[in-house]
Amino acid sequence: MRSRFSPSERTKSLGIPIGRSSDAGPDAITSRDNKWLKMFRAALRGTGPTAGELIGIEGTKLVEEALSSALEVEALLVSETGENQVERILRAAAGSETGIARSRILRTTDKLFAGVAGTEAPQGVAALLRPPDWALDDVLRGRATADGVHRADSALAVVLVGVQDPGNVGTIVRSAEAFGATGAIATRGTADPWSPKAIRASAGSALRLPLLHSMATPVVLAQLKIAGVKVYAASSHVAQPSSESGVGADLCESCAIFIGNEGAGLPSEVLHAADALIAIPMSEAVESLNAGVAASVVLYEAARQRKRASNCE
Amino acid sequence: MRSRFSPSERTKSLGIPIGRSSDAGPDAITSRDNKWLKMFRAALRGTGPTAGELIGIEGTKLVEEALSSALEVEALLVSETGENQVERILRAAAGSETGIARSRILRTTDKLFAGVAGTEAPQGVAALLRPPDWALDDVLRGRATADGVHRADSALAVVLVGVQDPGNVGTIVRSAEAFGATGAIATRGTADPWSPKAIRASAGSALRLPLLHSMATPVVLAQLKIAGVKVYAASSHVAQPSSESGVGADLCESCAIFIGNEGAGLPSEVLHAADALIAIPMSEAVESLNAGVAASVVLYEAARQRKRASNCE
Repeated sequence: MRSRFSPSERTKSLGIPIGRSSDAGPDAITSRDNKWLKMFRAALRGTGPTAGELIGIEGTKLVEEALSSALEVEALLVSETGENQVERILRAAAGSETGIARSRILRTTDKLFAGVAGTEAPQGVAALLRPPDWALDDVLRGRATADGVHRADSALAVVLVGVQDPGNVGTIVRSAEAFGATGAIATRGTADPWSPKAIRASAGSALRLPLLHSMATPVVLAQLKIAGVKVYAASSHVAQPSSESGVGADLCESCAIFIGNEGAGLPSEVLHAADALIAIPMSEAVESLNAGVAASVVLYEAARQRKRASNCE
Repeated sequence: MRSRFSPSERTKSLGIPIGRSSDAGPDAITSRDNKWLKMFRAALRGTGPTAGELIGIEGTKLVEEALSSALEVEALLVSETGENQVERILRAAAGSETGIARSRILRTTDKLFAGVAGTEAPQGVAALLRPPDWALDDVLRGRATADGVHRADSALAVVLVGVQDPGNVGTIVRSAEAFGATGAIATRGTADPWSPKAIRASAGSALRLPLLHSMATPVVLAQLKIAGVKVYAASSHVAQPSSESGVGADLCESCAIFIGNEGAGLPSEVLHAADALIAIPMSEAVESLNAGVAASVVLYEAARQRKRASNCE
C-alpha cells in the first residue's frame, strides 16, 4: 500500500500549516476525545472484556496471531512509529478468513498512542478484537480445524479457580496449548485470560485455545460431571513426599485439572468434588511451586502419559 | 519482649511533645538521611548486591527463612506496622545459628519505611543479609546439612544464561530447589537471583539453594568440563515434534541444564559446547514456553527420571 505519511513531509516543505494534519497523516486521529481512542484505552488498560466489549491487543505479532486464528479485527490503530508494520499486517489480513476493513485502519500520533497503550514502550500497533464465542464442547473437545475435524476424543481441560495474577493465567494458557490441552476455563475471581496482560503472557495462545471465562465454580463442576469428565484438583500447595514418583493420577482419562489461587490454593468445594488430588512430588523444603509452574508441570505430565499411547488405551 | 511503642502513648496522654519521639518509639530513626535507611533503600530497590554489598529482603516470612537458613542478619528494620512481627522474628532468631544482634534491630516510622521499601504495600519488616559464600562444589554437590553430609552424588545444576526477568529467575530457583537440583549458576547478564524481586519470586529458595552469580559463561563451561559434569542446552525455544515423548536426554547423569534468554534463547557458545540439546515435546502451534516453565519442566523431568532409581544406576 502507499504510505499515508508522505503528505506531512510535503506540507512541511510547502510551509503551509494545515489544521488536521500531523506526522500521522491527514486523516489521523488528533483528539484524545475521539471515541475510538477511548475504546482502545479502555481495552488496552483494562482487566478484560465484559459482555459486549472488545479484546484489546498490542504489537504486530499478536495482531498477526489474531488474524491467523480467524478472530474478527474490529479496528486497527497505528501510530507514526507503527506505520512501517502496516504492510506486514495487511499481508497477514489478506491471508486470513476475516481480514481488516480499510475504513477501520485508524492512524494517530505517537503521543496519543502512548496515551492509550497498556505497555511502557508501545510498538505503535494495537487492535480491538471481537471475543471468540467458545462453547463448553470446544473446551472439552479442542479447537476444530477449518473443516470441523481433528477434535480430541479425551478432554484435557484446565480450570483456573481464583488465579489472580494475569501473568500466571497467561502462562498457564500458553502451556495448555503447548501440551495439547483441549481448552481452559477461568472461573469468576480469576484474572481474565483475555485481559491484555494475560494475552501477552500467553504469547497469543489465549487467542487460539478454546476458553470460557467468568463461570461460577459450582456450574463448572456440575457441567463437567454431566459431560463425564473427571475432576482433578491440583494446586501449587498439594505436594507429596519426593520419595514417590509421578503425580499420582491417570491423566489419560478425560479430565479437567483444577488449579487454585496462588496463596490459598483450591477452595474446599473443589477439593470435595474432586475425583482425585494431583500432587507434584517435590522437596519438603519448598512449600509450593509458582502457580503457573505447577499447572504447566501437570499438563506436561498429562501430555507425557498420553503420548505413551499404549498407556492411554 | 516488651513493646517499645508504649512511650508514645504515654507521651500523648501527658500532652508533652518530645522532639525525637514518634509512633515508632523514642529510639526510632526519624531522618531519611540516616545511613541505615539509605542502605536499606539501596538493597530493597536495587538489582542485587555487588561485591561487598548486602542482600535486602522484605516481609516476616523471608526474614524467618533467612534465619532458618543460617544467613547472617546484619540489620532488621521494623516500622510501626511491623512492630507486632518482632516477637515472632526474635523467636526464629533464638532458634537459629546466627541470631540478630539487639543493637541491629532498628525502628522507623511507616512513612520512612515506605520510602525505602521495594514493595507497594510494605509489611513493615525488612532485613539486610550477608550473602552466603557458595563454592562451585556446593552448586554441584548440593547444600550440606549442619554436620556436612547428605550431599548429592550426581550434580543437577541449573545455569541461567541471560534470563532477564527477575521473576523468571526466582521461579526457576524455586523449582530447582523443589525438584532436588544441587544448585544454580547465574551468568553475567542474567537478573541477579539475590535481587529483591528474584528472592520474592523464589519464595525464599534463593536464600537456601547453593548459588553462584555474575559468572562469565566461558568460565562456567570450562569449570563444568573439568568437573566432569554434562552440559545440556535447554531453552524455551528448542521444541521437538509432539509425536515424540520425553525430553530426549538422560537426566540421571551428573549434569548442568542451561536455560537461555526469554527472547533469544541460548547463545551459540553454549549450543556448541553442549553435550546434548534438551527439547520439550510440544504442539507446533506454540513457538516457545515461558522461560520459567521450560526450566521447571526439565527439572521436573530430571527429578522423575532420578526417582525411578533403577533408571539412574
